[in-house]
Amino acid sequence: MIRTEPAMKPLDSVAILGVGLIGGSIGLALRKRKLARQVIGLGRNSTRLRTARRRGAVTSTTTRWARGVAGAELIVVCTPVGQIVDHILELAQYCSQPTLITDVGSTKQVLVESLSGKLPSHVRFVGSHPMAGSEKTGVRYSHDDLFQGRVAIVTPSSETTKESVKSVCRFWEALGSRVITMTPDVHDQAVGAVSHLPHVAATVLAAGASSQYQSLASSGWLDTTRVAAGDPRLWQQIFEENKDHVLTSIDQFAELLGQFRDALAKDDRRTVSRILKAGKRNRDALGS
Amino acid sequence: MIRTEPAMKPLDSVAILGVGLIGGSIGLALRKRKLARQVIGLGRNSTRLRTARRRGAVTSTTTRWARGVAGAELIVVCTPVGQIVDHILELAQYCSQPTLITDVGSTKQVLVESLSGKLPSHVRFVGSHPMAGSEKTGVRYSHDDLFQGRVAIVTPSSETTKESVKSVCRFWEALGSRVITMTPDVHDQAVGAVSHLPHVAATVLAAGASSQYQSLASSGWLDTTRVAAGDPRLWQQIFEENKDHVLTSIDQFAELLGQFRDALAKDDRRTVSRILKAGKRNRDALGS
Repeated sequence: MIRTEPAMKPLDSVAILGVGLIGGSIGLALRKRKLARQVIGLGRNSTRLRTARRRGAVTSTTTRWARGVAGAELIVVCTPVGQIVDHILELAQYCSQPTLITDVGSTKQVLVESLSGKLPSHVRFVGSHPMAGSEKTGVRYSHDDLFQGRVAIVTPSSETTKESVKSVCRFWEALGSRVITMTPDVHDQAVGAVSHLPHVAATVLAAGASSQYQSLASSGWLDTTRVAAGDPRLWQQIFEENKDHVLTSIDQFAELLGQFRDALAKDDRRTVSRILKAGKRNRDALGS
Repeated sequence: MIRTEPAMKPLDSVAILGVGLIGGSIGLALRKRKLARQVIGLGRNSTRLRTARRRGAVTSTTTRWARGVAGAELIVVCTPVGQIVDHILELAQYCSQPTLITDVGSTKQVLVESLSGKLPSHVRFVGSHPMAGSEKTGVRYSHDDLFQGRVAIVTPSSETTKESVKSVCRFWEALGSRVITMTPDVHDQAVGAVSHLPHVAATVLAAGASSQYQSLASSGWLDTTRVAAGDPRLWQQIFEENKDHVLTSIDQFAELLGQFRDALAKDDRRTVSRILKAGKRNRDALGS
């Protein structure tokens, strides 16, 4: 389901936990589009929070989370995948009024299962995953149009209400995203194929690169391996949380790689050509 | 060996066979840098040749190759890898005076072996491989700084003279390239690892992509698969000519991919982390 009509009512107060590339870009976009009167940056590290405030990504910051979320109608959790559950459970304790929480993590099923039945009734959670980002990290790379025209996945589950799903969809639409909804499990399978597998391939290519040939690397090598510059700890968490789907995607990739290899070895030109043409067709379909 | 001092004496006449992205960019660069009085575009297709002339990539064109190479001091063969040998042998027949021929093909060993002992003594051949290009093809994408700051590999062999190798090195340096020399076989091994393997990985990723998830493809997928949009016929020839080295590179890649897969499956966090970190280290070393 693709929605296109942004219709979010401006909010009084939004709290963002973790003001790095994604959290910072959300803050910048909210402020630029005048979608929130107050954007409160939460974190543990005052220096980083100060950097985010100076960049204009948030209007105020605090390391005292209870205070930060006190008046927030919406909390966006932008911390690494492996910490999101603990962070949401902690923040939920501090919410005294009806509050909507979403996140931006790259996996969803483990998150939804871990939170199941553990949130107070006035706190609603709907998972999100904006398909935007970069191998770069940190608020200094954030920008207010990071989500413009990009897909944001919102993941309704048996525990989400229609109203809260709608609010989260409108939030991403208001930041310029095209919203697609899918269940947490379908999400994890999809991103396993379209995001986590390319990361594995890029990482293995880069990790296996011989230093003696690196002076020859041209744009092809640079493009194909670009995402391997991403944060290893973050990606380790993503792979662990989405292990089953990532393994399935790797196995399918290895199977087709083996077919290509054997076809080349046996001078089976038809198969080599078929795979090359299928790759070009699929790649051309997506543009540059 | 890296050379940095361009010192090519301007030539009177250079012939370029095949005026597409690479051939066209050579012509544009020669003209912009005033390195040749005449740049003659050779080909079979008058319409394409006309396009190249209109773009300013060449000063004149002809489909009559004998006439085109009559006065040329240097011929650059920019046709697809599988045709280079035949084209060089044909052109060599038409050379009545001392002529230097080079090419821009992505593989070298088969080429050098196939030409061995077959050229008249006044025609000297030295293979080249500029590590520049794009998944785009055609003279309309050519530009005069395509080689600026990029590596060009020149491949001396037992049949090349020092003087002709030096001339070809100076030619690429004059176009702005950093020249590296290596034997044809070492070249093929190196590009098998640094160029052909990434193309295989990108192709297999793109070919295996499920259409149902394609709307989710973000910059990671787009970067990792970009080169898969390259010309399938051209790449088929490259893979066939460099089969042994490509197979070795695929096998090394598949081995490391298998290690990563098994480590993830067994929750061997150390190995997963080691490979992720090695990938990041190697990728970071090359810049963006």
